[in-house]
Amino acid sequence: RRCGFPEVIYGEGKTAETIAQIASELRSRGERVLATRIDLAKANEISQLLPEMMYDSTARTLRIGDDLPDAQAKGNVVVISAGTSDLPVAEEAHQTLLWMGARVSMVHDVGVAGPHRLPERLAEFENADALVVVAGMEGALPSVVGGYVACPIFAVPTSVGYGANLGGIAALLSMLNSCASNVAVVNIDAGFKGGYLAGLVATQKHDSMQGQDAPAH
Amino acid sequence: RRCGFPEVIYGEGKTAETIAQIASELRSRGERVLATRIDLAKANEISQLLPEMMYDSTARTLRIGDDLPDAQAKGNVVVISAGTSDLPVAEEAHQTLLWMGARVSMVHDVGVAGPHRLPERLAEFENADALVVVAGMEGALPSVVGGYVACPIFAVPTSVGYGANLGGIAALLSMLNSCASNVAVVNIDAGFKGGYLAGLVATQKHDSMQGQDAPAH
Amino acid sequence: RRCGFPEVIYGEGKTAETIAQIASELRSRGERVLATRIDLAKANEISQLLPEMMYDSTARTLRIGDDLPDAQAKGNVVVISAGTSDLPVAEEAHQTLLWMGARVSMVHDVGVAGPHRLPERLAEFENADALVVVAGMEGALPSVVGGYVACPIFAVPTSVGYGANLGGIAALLSMLNSCASNVAVVNIDAGFKGGYLAGLVATQKHDSMQGQDAPAH
Amino acid sequence: RRCGFPEVIYGEGKTAETIAQIASELRSRGERVLATRIDLAKANEISQLLPEMMYDSTARTLRIGDDLPDAQAKGNVVVISAGTSDLPVAEEAHQTLLWMGARVSMVHDVGVAGPHRLPERLAEFENADALVVVAGMEGALPSVVGGYVACPIFAVPTSVGYGANLGGIAALLSMLNSCASNVAVVNIDAGFKGGYLAGLVATQKHDSMQGQDAPAH
Amino acid sequence: RRCGFPEVIYGEGKTAETIAQIASELRSRGERVLATRIDLAKANEISQLLPEMMYDSTARTLRIGDDLPDAQAKGNVVVISAGTSDLPVAEEAHQTLLWMGARVSMVHDVGVAGPHRLPERLAEFENADALVVVAGMEGALPSVVGGYVACPIFAVPTSVGYGANLGGIAALLSMLNSCASNVAVVNIDAGFKGGYLAGLVATQKHDSMQGQDAPAH
Amino acid sequence: RRCGFPEVIYGEGKTAETIAQIASELRSRGERVLATRIDLAKANEISQLLPEMMYDSTARTLRIGDDLPDAQAKGNVVVISAGTSDLPVAEEAHQTLLWMGARVSMVHDVGVAGPHRLPERLAEFENADALVVVAGMEGALPSVVGGYVACPIFAVPTSVGYGANLGGIAALLSMLNSCASNVAVVNIDAGFKGGYLAGLVATQKHDSMQGQDAPAH
Amino acid sequence: RRCGFPEVIYGEGKTAETIAQIASELRSRGERVLATRIDLAKANEISQLLPEMMYDSTARTLRIGDDLPDAQAKGNVVVISAGTSDLPVAEEAHQTLLWMGARVSMVHDVGVAGPHRLPERLAEFENADALVVVAGMEGALPSVVGGYVACPIFAVPTSVGYGANLGGIAALLSMLNSCASNVAVVNIDAGFKGGYLAGLVATQKHDSMQGQDAPAH
Amino acid sequence: RRCGFPEVIYGEGKTAETIAQIASELRSRGERVLATRIDLAKANEISQLLPEMMYDSTARTLRIGDDLPDAQAKGNVVVISAGTSDLPVAEEAHQTLLWMGARVSMVHDVGVAGPHRLPERLAEFENADALVVVAGMEGALPSVVGGYVACPIFAVPTSVGYGANLGGIAALLSMLNSCASNVAVVNIDAGFKGGYLAGLVATQKHDSMQGQDAPAH
Ligand SMILES: Nc1ncnc2c1ncn2[C@@H]1O[C@H](COP(=O)(O)O)[C@@H](O)[C@H]1O
Ligand SMILES: Nc1ncnc2c1ncn2[C@@H]1O[C@H](COP(=O)(O)O)[C@@H](O)[C@H]1O
Ligand SMILES: Nc1ncnc2c1ncn2[C@@H]1O[C@H](COP(=O)(O)O)[C@@H](O)[C@H]1O
Ligand SMILES: Nc1ncnc2c1ncn2[C@@H]1O[C@H](COP(=O)(O)O)[C@@H](O)[C@H]1O
Ligand SMILES: [Mg+2]
Ligand SMILES: [Mg+2]
Ligand SMILES: [Mg+2]
Ligand SMILES: [Mg+2]
Ligand SMILES: [Mg+2]
Ligand SMILES: [Mg+2]
Ligand SMILES: [Mg+2]
Ligand SMILES: [Mg+2]
Repeated sequence: RRCGFPEVIYGEGKTAETIAQIASELRSRGERVLATRIDLAKANEISQLLPEMMYDSTARTLRIGDDLPDAQAKGNVVVISAGTSDLPVAEEAHQTLLWMGARVSMVHDVGVAGPHRLPERLAEFENADALVVVAGMEGALPSVVGGYVACPIFAVPTSVGYGANLGGIAALLSMLNSCASNVAVVNIDAGFKGGYLAGLVATQKHDSMQGQDAPAH
Repeated sequence: RRCGFPEVIYGEGKTAETIAQIASELRSRGERVLATRIDLAKANEISQLLPEMMYDSTARTLRIGDDLPDAQAKGNVVVISAGTSDLPVAEEAHQTLLWMGARVSMVHDVGVAGPHRLPERLAEFENADALVVVAGMEGALPSVVGGYVACPIFAVPTSVGYGANLGGIAALLSMLNSCASNVAVVNIDAGFKGGYLAGLVATQKHDSMQGQDAPAH
Repeated sequence: RRCGFPEVIYGEGKTAETIAQIASELRSRGERVLATRIDLAKANEISQLLPEMMYDSTARTLRIGDDLPDAQAKGNVVVISAGTSDLPVAEEAHQTLLWMGARVSMVHDVGVAGPHRLPERLAEFENADALVVVAGMEGALPSVVGGYVACPIFAVPTSVGYGANLGGIAALLSMLNSCASNVAVVNIDAGFKGGYLAGLVATQKHDSMQGQDAPAH
Repeated sequence: RRCGFPEVIYGEGKTAETIAQIASELRSRGERVLATRIDLAKANEISQLLPEMMYDSTARTLRIGDDLPDAQAKGNVVVISAGTSDLPVAEEAHQTLLWMGARVSMVHDVGVAGPHRLPERLAEFENADALVVVAGMEGALPSVVGGYVACPIFAVPTSVGYGANLGGIAALLSMLNSCASNVAVVNIDAGFKGGYLAGLVATQKHDSMQGQDAPAH
Repeated sequence: RRCGFPEVIYGEGKTAETIAQIASELRSRGERVLATRIDLAKANEISQLLPEMMYDSTARTLRIGDDLPDAQAKGNVVVISAGTSDLPVAEEAHQTLLWMGARVSMVHDVGVAGPHRLPERLAEFENADALVVVAGMEGALPSVVGGYVACPIFAVPTSVGYGANLGGIAALLSMLNSCASNVAVVNIDAGFKGGYLAGLVATQKHDSMQGQDAPAH
Repeated sequence: RRCGFPEVIYGEGKTAETIAQIASELRSRGERVLATRIDLAKANEISQLLPEMMYDSTARTLRIGDDLPDAQAKGNVVVISAGTSDLPVAEEAHQTLLWMGARVSMVHDVGVAGPHRLPERLAEFENADALVVVAGMEGALPSVVGGYVACPIFAVPTSVGYGANLGGIAALLSMLNSCASNVAVVNIDAGFKGGYLAGLVATQKHDSMQGQDAPAH
Repeated sequence: RRCGFPEVIYGEGKTAETIAQIASELRSRGERVLATRIDLAKANEISQLLPEMMYDSTARTLRIGDDLPDAQAKGNVVVISAGTSDLPVAEEAHQTLLWMGARVSMVHDVGVAGPHRLPERLAEFENADALVVVAGMEGALPSVVGGYVACPIFAVPTSVGYGANLGGIAALLSMLNSCASNVAVVNIDAGFKGGYLAGLVATQKHDSMQGQDAPAH
Repeated sequence: RRCGFPEVIYGEGKTAETIAQIASELRSRGERVLATRIDLAKANEISQLLPEMMYDSTARTLRIGDDLPDAQAKGNVVVISAGTSDLPVAEEAHQTLLWMGARVSMVHDVGVAGPHRLPERLAEFENADALVVVAGMEGALPSVVGGYVACPIFAVPTSVGYGANLGGIAALLSMLNSCASNVAVVNIDAGFKGGYLAGLVATQKHDSMQGQDAPAH
């Protein structure tokens, strides 16, 4: 258990057997399970070994554990993404937040090239405890969002784009140099990390309001 | 004469004498004169040799030739800049446009971190023939402006910022990866080039409306 | 509608169904349709769903809408390219300009290593409203062309080359550092953007001459 | 006012007069004032214009507004730094947190080369609401700290080091690739941003416990 | 024979025939044989030509020559690795050390994100003559290990990770900037080199204690 | 003596005394002397110690040994440069060629932005044995020259420019990717190397025509 | 005809038909033909269209035209390579030199890690008119060779290696920074260019000795 | 005490007072003292506070503690350097080894461009326990030395050079890609680290021969 949450299985380079085995063990201890970076073929193999695992083919994640009803979910996180191609990364963040038991909603396709789209949806995210903002290409979206909200923003650059996007480095640099003060950054395509950090902020705030603070680490 | 305009003097690494001499020669042929990248000390030296030259200490340019009255100036260019520190580059564009005889206005300090500032000033730039947009740090401003206008945008990244701004490379990459289709890019801190290109678009459009197209090159 | 033109469909990472659906919708509104970055297999799938779409296998674009007869097309754009391998990028620009209704012609295989080839064809491009210049390897062609013309040049670096071409970064840097003042740059392999910007300059100039677009300045 | 806090003055490239004037204006509206990146000479000039401003020569910041007594300060942030040379950046974070009214303490000189030093001081930071972790050279400290705590960590890479530290890029990359899930990153030497983000997390959590800020969710 | 050891066969880009032939020749001179970077298919081909060759599918190495009994093996080297995905590189170091006749043991999965794991296993490596430390992602492990031991450490960065890991460059830079003085670095994924250098230190120290190698100084 | 020529003194980081002493020694053996990268202050110091040394303040070189009369000089090298700011590097090549006893002439200010200038001067360089071509910014000149001549070209990129010129890397990459087959490249600002290589080609060709050097093949 | 030699066909991205057609045309004009970067499948296709073309599967080149008998070949070039994996690039240089009619010999596998191997073969290359030196990994071989010979060296970096070789950039930088004065550099894996430049030096020297200088360009 | 040796003072960014105080404290505990990266002005200040400290102006180090007589010094390390400008880095290694009590000798100015110089001095270093090899520019020397010796080599790249040396990155990459198996690398200009690692190997080997192994850490 780290940060009050069980281990997450990073699926890249692990066999279906290994993943199923770690998942079983976590499950037997009563933990909710999350595995990331699982392609469809591997997901199918794992599902045969451990049918409880639910696959999300956009996020490429496997989970065990029901989605909490909204009333029980904690805090309030919104995942905002720029374009259609950024969806897999945004969904990895989404699945991570569901696994954490955070209340989460999605605002898609509000990239900066259509500047009217984002403010129209302001009501959906202006009161969040934390935001995850996912964008590729020039990575400008977190800076713009930063001007509308008072909460911490976790910016996730994606490798979406071509040429001088340098596999996501352009978006990453853009976000690191954001003139908005409330923007922190994680690795390229790291939807998991963005979701996890926003989930920590939101659930710990929620717990402290309930007097449930400080898990025994 | 290139592109219908006389040569511009690039001042970096030229002596005051050399610059004054080239300027005199251009002047004697009846040309308007522009010299860029001139520091204050060199400007003072040159002014003693050639008192006609007017120095702009923000742009670090010298010019000979009166500003045209607005009614005679051609076309309509707006120079938009993100923050106070981007002013010297924006001013180099401004001086270049004045020298070309283009009609030009300035919109300052409308960086993306204050997302309400830009749309408030939309009326000032939405009907321009071409825009110069100057920004450092994450360089997001041209992408946002691109969503509001129908004309070509010449984006000028600046070296303003620190750390992972990499001396302007972060802003440059951001602009090259803009998801707005109408954004072209010039070199870091190249206010002259941004102004020159916007000036070509605006003055050539103006001339063609007057039936004055195609200078004899 | 942006910049007076309908949305373009960026095909990378979208399914045939999605693309056909967006295209149908645009078509039903009476818009001309352009989709870029479509490989042959996907083009075949889309053609079965929407037979009107015409595929250009060099440009890897799909279009709906007839080519305008030259007399109706607007302005005058020339796409100049350096070598045979640069053709797909040059064709993407070409298709974009046809879709915009711009008058466009092509000058191929005039790379700088054969310095006599370009000036021989000067008559074909010297009176253009705007040029698109496409080159890989050392990316020198826009600088040379810049010395012959008075109009704005939109330089498109390509990823053509090997080794120290760094996937197009060498050509990109070369173009950004052009000693010709009338050269602006877009992303590597961004034929669409180069074409779009040149098309904006040419069609807006044309429209203003016809008094169709004249904004109040 | 952004994020519930007044504007911060970024001192780089602003004159003493400009800074004093912005500060006066903020002061006259009853705001607490913070200005960053002010060298000693400029601080002296400003102090003559506006004697209330208190300079911290390590952090290179100016502030107006008393430190809150610990009992009134909000939340609990700890700033952890690796080596002596990282102190200026850690202090910029510290001053920012004081200005925000957050409760803050410092843990210095616990870099990874002395692996016994950090765990000895665990009691001082394990119950924090958020941490700022400042390190140069190989930038490993946030990853190690991440293994001990349950809260979000804002990692600040510094330009401390030489040769292949690449002016802080080595530490930045290290932090972005942290195998600890609870590490977010800001720009090189961006003590202000690290402090601001941690301050947002801590003070917003505090306010929500007091029912002062509870947004409707 | 170089450094007292026979040549190692670098398998990349060599045919099965070539490798088998070089191996036979070495064998006929009574040498122990090591070939690295051999994939499974090529290993099968070679085994048919030269059945003595034993393949390690994790390390992707082929060897001829028995493992020495621990009592005869020389010195004491420990190979420490951070995560499961770093195993192939760690195993290449292991196989190299076995081939050299060094005494070697392995400590796996002690990455810095679980800071309690490494000190628990201190007894296994604190008296080594030399260590090989293998880590990807942020590459922090050698710095931390460096704080616990008195011997030279050969750090091997791996290409494990994604995005801003830049194919192992992030870990490489981290290790080069280590604040621990006893850390030297080899190329990315160079398990062979890390093992070879540690093996030289350990076996030469062993030999000199036995008076087998004592050069006249 | 290397390559049939005595050692050249690389002045960077050597004291005036050291340089004068090495020069004296070479002189006493009857050698012609060349020292590069000497600033004015150091040149003055050296001249007091060794008055024979003649300083060229553009090239920043010191030489001992008379210029050969054209009739005695060997071969035929031309140094071509793009702009005024490239002169110091071109002059370093020039001085090196004079010291080698090669016949050398200069063609200045024929950069690609003025495409008519170079062909006008073709007669001056088309029969050279070897060319040195010096250019900064986009570094396109060697590619263009390569189209006009049959001899080997030694391209010297300079650090002239700003922003995305990356201190000369842009010009260097451009030259390495030249589509002209007869272009070889040396280090940024390496006028000495460019001159030396062209001098080897020209003088060895000359000597072999005189039968002075004809190796037995 | 460039540089006195007919055009070379760069095969990358050209179809078999195109290549066969250009080759036929050159052949019909009596030219010797060279095509580079042709894989086996394409070579087979071309051979069916144009059976005269002889394929070299190591160099990946096609040629038409007999090898000249040694007595008729011109000058004296040696191609030196470091390791077995560098052979394809060395062979591309070799084939280019045969096509040019230069006398050429090969010295293989003399990389710097076996420092005795190179001097043992000095007699084979010390009297060459020009050398091509091919090396990957650290690219040190040209610097070492440069210490033994008086003629110009054309250094060809290869992409051989892994990790921090950066696809050949490490070897390229090494060669550009060579402390040997007689080393010029071409693009990564550019065996053709290295061979062509050495061939120009050698054949032009030979021709001038025969009084055949200056082809009519 | 780390690795059996007391702490070394890294002087960069510490005041004279701080350094003198740390040094006094170490001295009072009977430790030998070493401080690195001290410029002359700071050294003078420190000497007035603590006259025992002996400054080496080439190495820019301060030491307290006598040089051991050769008979008492341990093991056998040789520091080899390529050129005169690499001396300060080589001397930092030298001073570090003297401080450690290792027996050490120097071999200077044996860079690869003069390939006869290194083998002439082979007797001086072929029996060393460990070597430090210092080189800038192309950084080829460690690879060449690696071919002559059987012991571990610690390669130290220096920032000596210009242009494409990239401040030492070229030499660093070259050393990391060395085809010699016995070459490990440290940071650019890190003479201290190179010396320290070689000193560990040599003194620990010496101690183990004396049965003095394993200091009590
Ligand atoms: N998609 C992901 N990106 C980054 N880190 C991850 C991801 N998924 C899991 N992790 C982290 O990787 C750790 C497990 O690594 P491993 O031991 O290699 O399975 C988890 O505890 C998480 O901190
Ligand atoms: N600030 C500037 N940035 C880029 N190019 C410039 C600038 N100022 C002048 N130029 C260009 O430099 C050319 C003159 O260069 P030169 O011959 O070196 O004086 C002019 O014709 C312009 O095209
Ligand atoms: N040290 C700093 N690093 C990064 N951003 C800063 C810093 N200090 C102030 N800022 C930001 O810069 C904004 C003001 O920028 P400006 O309008 O240029 O004064 C503030 O609102 C902060 O968000
Ligand atoms: N020149 C140097 N380069 C790299 N590390 C050094 C150098 N000098 C001292 N060190 C290391 O820096 C540590 C002290 O760092 P600090 O606590 O900042 O003084 C010492 O224990 C050494 O490991
Ligand atoms: Mg985006
Ligand atoms: Mg900005
Ligand atoms: Mg080209
Ligand atoms: Mg640190
Ligand atoms: Mg790791
Ligand atoms: Mg140039
Ligand atoms: Mg090699
Ligand atoms: Mg060297």
